[in-house]
Amino acid sequence: MIENTAIDQEKLDKLAKLAVYTGVGLQKGQNLLLTGPIDALPLVRLIAKHAYKAGAGLVTPLFSDSEIILSRYKYAQDQSFDVAADWLYKGMGDAFDNNTARMAIAGDDPMLLSEMDPEKVARANKANSVAYKPARERITQFDINWNIVSWPGISWAKRMFPDLDSLEAQTKLSEAIFLASRVVEDDPVQAWKEHNCALRKKTDWLNGRNFKDLHFIGPGTDLKVGLADDHEWMGGASQAQNGVICNPNIPSEEVFTTPHYLRVEGHVSSTKPLSHQGSLIDEIRVEFREGAIVHAKASKGEKIFNKVLESDDGARRLGEVALVPDSSPISQSGLLFYNTLFDENAACHIALGQCYSKCFKSKQNLSQEEIKSRGGNSSMIHIDWMIGSKEIDIDGLSENGEITPVFRKGEWCV
Amino acid sequence: MIENTAIDQEKLDKLAKLAVYTGVGLQKGQNLLLTGPIDALPLVRLIAKHAYKAGAGLVTPLFSDSEIILSRYKYAQDQSFDVAADWLYKGMGDAFDNNTARMAIAGDDPMLLSEMDPEKVARANKANSVAYKPARERITQFDINWNIVSWPGISWAKRMFPDLDSLEAQTKLSEAIFLASRVVEDDPVQAWKEHNCALRKKTDWLNGRNFKDLHFIGPGTDLKVGLADDHEWMGGASQAQNGVICNPNIPSEEVFTTPHYLRVEGHVSSTKPLSHQGSLIDEIRVEFREGAIVHAKASKGEKIFNKVLESDDGARRLGEVALVPDSSPISQSGLLFYNTLFDENAACHIALGQCYSKCFKSKQNLSQEEIKSRGGNSSMIHIDWMIGSKEIDIDGLSENGEITPVFRKGEWCV
Repeated sequence: MIENTAIDQEKLDKLAKLAVYTGVGLQKGQNLLLTGPIDALPLVRLIAKHAYKAGAGLVTPLFSDSEIILSRYKYAQDQSFDVAADWLYKGMGDAFDNNTARMAIAGDDPMLLSEMDPEKVARANKANSVAYKPARERITQFDINWNIVSWPGISWAKRMFPDLDSLEAQTKLSEAIFLASRVVEDDPVQAWKEHNCALRKKTDWLNGRNFKDLHFIGPGTDLKVGLADDHEWMGGASQAQNGVICNPNIPSEEVFTTPHYLRVEGHVSSTKPLSHQGSLIDEIRVEFREGAIVHAKASKGEKIFNKVLESDDGARRLGEVALVPDSSPISQSGLLFYNTLFDENAACHIALGQCYSKCFKSKQNLSQEEIKSRGGNSSMIHIDWMIGSKEIDIDGLSENGEITPVFRKGEWCV
Repeated sequence: MIENTAIDQEKLDKLAKLAVYTGVGLQKGQNLLLTGPIDALPLVRLIAKHAYKAGAGLVTPLFSDSEIILSRYKYAQDQSFDVAADWLYKGMGDAFDNNTARMAIAGDDPMLLSEMDPEKVARANKANSVAYKPARERITQFDINWNIVSWPGISWAKRMFPDLDSLEAQTKLSEAIFLASRVVEDDPVQAWKEHNCALRKKTDWLNGRNFKDLHFIGPGTDLKVGLADDHEWMGGASQAQNGVICNPNIPSEEVFTTPHYLRVEGHVSSTKPLSHQGSLIDEIRVEFREGAIVHAKASKGEKIFNKVLESDDGARRLGEVALVPDSSPISQSGLLFYNTLFDENAACHIALGQCYSKCFKSKQNLSQEEIKSRGGNSSMIHIDWMIGSKEIDIDGLSENGEITPVFRKGEWCV
């Protein structure tokens, strides 16, 4: 294996350290389970080094390889596409129950599966979603500290910068990742402390206001999103059920909470393409009635999008609403990353599917029924898509009908 | 990742195909769990391709990285060395219970850990052995079809050919692997059919004779190995409990059976160095009484060897005895591979620890007690070491004291 030298090794090391200390907030003696694409090996090695230096018990990396994934679509027989590694996901759930921390490295080609049979892609995704449940639940319940951080994979970089050669594209993507992740600062850990503080001011204000609904108005959008009873706004650093404070996403510019799964009305248009498990879905336009999408169109990937909505009962309802100003560094970079971790931090967004059970003020150990009675949605999917832009206005509606401006022309009013 | 071109890609493809069809004998619809070093990715990709073409359900590769393994020894705090990925091994056991086939790719640096603290190495190995039990048991019980095949890893190659540069050493090791694995033949699958036939003739003869003991005599060796009651000689292709015929080892030149854990007497000297989990143990001399090693010396790695013997009650007793003529192609190559998969096929050998429960004539679902009552050993280790050479003679002793020559000067008498 020959390591890539197009990437600033000092900044990569800073990113690894940030992921361990600020991202996952690894505790002394805690095990770390790490997943990532195989070409992210240089970053995985640095993360392992910093994790052990921070006192990790055991670091267990699990690698995926895009060529092996494609081999399946090219050569496997039909029955393969209903199979998933359930034993592995069950094991991951067990690891989390034993307080293992979780880190995921994003960096795969976002359009890896775009030329594969969509029917097979949908079946494989569904089988995987079902099998992944034991692991996913521990994350959505926020049982343990976790983090996602990014590797500038060459195929991903080439999607973003198709006119550059591979190494130039990778260098450019690495710079965008370093900038958005704040590792260009002298002391990234300190920079994140300040950033978390700024996000905290927004969540404190929103939690104080306790809006009943948010009203989004913009081109192609007039959507009233009811918020769940007892909802709590969160963003940046937050505390997992195991008591550890972590930053689940690097980068992160959003504040977010749980909508009410029965109280979403109106229509909304996506403002950026959605890259979903290897396929691109663009110009989504949907209509909500009583919380559910009753009509969905897309200029690209409409069939896949409608398949997603059929995943289960909760797939056509909202599990998250998030606010990001247009002035966010990622939005200002003008780059489309084809990657939710970045693109969701460039614009206000909503997510179909599972809600975060942590986004309730009475968040300790809520049962499934308690979450549902507050309006929290349940599903095996959780898919974010962008509805914000510099043309979007948002009002907060209080219980007594009072209207408070929250965003004007894509920027915070507070 | 830049792929290596020093290796004959056509032969590598033949090796992958042989591993899938002849090695693991993958069945249509069967899942495949594959472990290997991360630099074996080119071989893993070819195996995945052939597995999917053969009708695999899902191929799940798990990769290890030597640099991450070393990071732990360099940077981790003391408590790390009693931790293992128990959740992962438990999951593997679950996968095998669901008829997932198992393939392992050998190719790591055999002396990876030789300069690490032996105390930490021993603790980590022990923790791993304990955690690995659920997975190991399914293999030793032969519940499912499995196979080990080799990748010519550069670090391994450099150990074997220290005077060559990395790519030359890798090329030379790849040629040795291809030769020993019979992929130099036009039709390796057919060549293995013939080879399996030849091994079958030896096992049929030995099973017909039903010796009570084997008596090994050579320089530094005068050892009587009692064979377990109801023992069966096996070699080459054999049938797993799930009904699938596989060749667990590629290459394989041995026939082997289960010794009686209480009936081993005398002294024996190793004839090749033993490479054990990253450390080299050389010139072993041990004395057996009533089946157990009562005294052990080694010119190199004596401390580690004695640690191994203390792993548990069964670690100082035999779980396997195997016969390989000195004329075997691997022995004739004159190469020391520092890898049991190869070196055990160059010479007669014994293994400390766990017996193979498949090596009994009444092999269907023997309980632990039934195995023990027949003389089968039980342990969490299974470590082969070489005692054969062109100077070794072996006699078979029958129940009534009759002596039959089995080997003379390292060669079969039959």
